[in-house]
Amino acid sequence: MSTEVANPRDDCRALGQVIDRIGDKWTVMVVGHLSEGPQRFNGLMRAIPGISHRMLTLTLRGLQRDGLVRRTQFPTIPPRVDYELTDLGLSLTGPLSMLARWASAERSSIEAAQRVYDGETA
Amino acid sequence: MSTEVANPRDDCRALGQVIDRIGDKWTVMVVGHLSEGPQRFNGLMRAIPGISHRMLTLTLRGLQRDGLVRRTQFPTIPPRVDYELTDLGLSLTGPLSMLARWASAERSSIEAAQRVYDGETA
Repeated sequence: MSTEVANPRDDCRALGQVIDRIGDKWTVMVVGHLSEGPQRFNGLMRAIPGISHRMLTLTLRGLQRDGLVRRTQFPTIPPRVDYELTDLGLSLTGPLSMLARWASAERSSIEAAQRVYDGETA
Repeated sequence: MSTEVANPRDDCRALGQVIDRIGDKWTVMVVGHLSEGPQRFNGLMRAIPGISHRMLTLTLRGLQRDGLVRRTQFPTIPPRVDYELTDLGLSLTGPLSMLARWASAERSSIEAAQRVYDGETA
């Protein structure tokens, strides 16, 4: 914990930035798949439907920058690169899986509400 | 629950859409403030630093469409409009507050990791 007196509005803004990063759907899916163990780029590509090569590259880079994912290159021929969660990344899997469980359980209720809303406002 | 045989890839995609919607930082903040009780538009504007009139309008509209927020207009002069969480919206506050607590607790670790990464790649 920092001992400096924080500005609550700055706090709120910074918190929003963190949530925007980790609430991104590709981030949630990559963290979810890495929670099962280290994976290679192509393994993640296969496991996550609809993700593009570029989007997976950007998502992994963002996660490395945030300190949530570690990239390890092994000096084999051809070189092998693994991606795995750091301890910080592992600590995120609990909150994210709660959110994913909620989304999965309530998806049909949300879609039903959307159909009613779109019918009313059409 | 639907009885049709679901395609797991479609499921995963639909789940991603729900997470993208509810993982948006303004959505998280609006749901967080509404968890304390019904609020008016201007009250939310004051409570959420940095949100624009247009972004609050869009966020509330999205939450109404998803069935998470109820808008009630009272026939007073001038008319009064309240926004409050539905039962579905209330059920989201648990998972979201876990995520917000994680973001708040780990924000300084994330920012430290970003400084190291940006220094290494500069």
